[in-house]
Amino acid sequence: MAQHDDHSKAVKELWEKIKDVRIAMLTTAELNGMLRSRPMATQKEEFDGTLWFFTYDDSGKVGEIQRDQNVNLSYADLGKTLYVSVSGKAQMVHDKEKAEKMWNPLYKAWFPNGLEDPRLALLKVEVEQAEYWDAPNGKLVAI
Amino acid sequence: MAQHDDHSKAVKELWEKIKDVRIAMLTTAELNGMLRSRPMATQKEEFDGTLWFFTYDDSGKVGEIQRDQNVNLSYADLGKTLYVSVSGKAQMVHDKEKAEKMWNPLYKAWFPNGLEDPRLALLKVEVEQAEYWDAPNGKLVAI
Repeated sequence: MAQHDDHSKAVKELWEKIKDVRIAMLTTAELNGMLRSRPMATQKEEFDGTLWFFTYDDSGKVGEIQRDQNVNLSYADLGKTLYVSVSGKAQMVHDKEKAEKMWNPLYKAWFPNGLEDPRLALLKVEVEQAEYWDAPNGKLVAI
Repeated sequence: MAQHDDHSKAVKELWEKIKDVRIAMLTTAELNGMLRSRPMATQKEEFDGTLWFFTYDDSGKVGEIQRDQNVNLSYADLGKTLYVSVSGKAQMVHDKEKAEKMWNPLYKAWFPNGLEDPRLALLKVEVEQAEYWDAPNGKLVAI
């Protein structure tokens, strides 16, 4: 029970840190080991330890994730001097109902064909560990 | 010659993007494959395709870099909607003269014992590839 409470508290605390930064840099590993990152918009779903993003299922990062599920999401807010590292495992999810629930017409800037595009997919990241820096020293939190 | 000019132009363009963001999230791979990131202050050295950071040579990331030199540096400026991914190879460098040249008394917030600390070292990242997003689509640049 104590462990459950700790988990809930850690999840809530992480969400408070990242929800307003919103755009994360998602780092994935290429086949040759090179690490690349790309900006991704965090979906404002009820956060239970899983983060959701829209993507195309033929984009470069998808191939990288199929080979190696390990990803990092970094959230940086220069103004607030807030830095968050989220380590987790990613997978592609095709769930039209969930996508409809999360869709916002503003996303047409990135996905011009919207929800009807068969390439549109969801990227799901199960969070394993998070670290915050809003002071000189970081804080490591297991999720 | 054309290739040399392209390289110089790419290096200059990258520096223009990142020099004011300054704090990068450095992503490294742990032995189990987990990806972690940490905020690091980019040194304002003359940029020739190599980025420099201060670190402690007994910090967690150093062990990770010794096992796997591949790192990613992400620079995010929410206000300017600017996102930069820098892929490269990292190594530890002990060069007191270089460290003295780059040192700023403000760094005592992170390294209270300053230049006299034997654990103080430089992390050098040779940039291999960079990508920018300051519009919906990214731009890939080989350095």
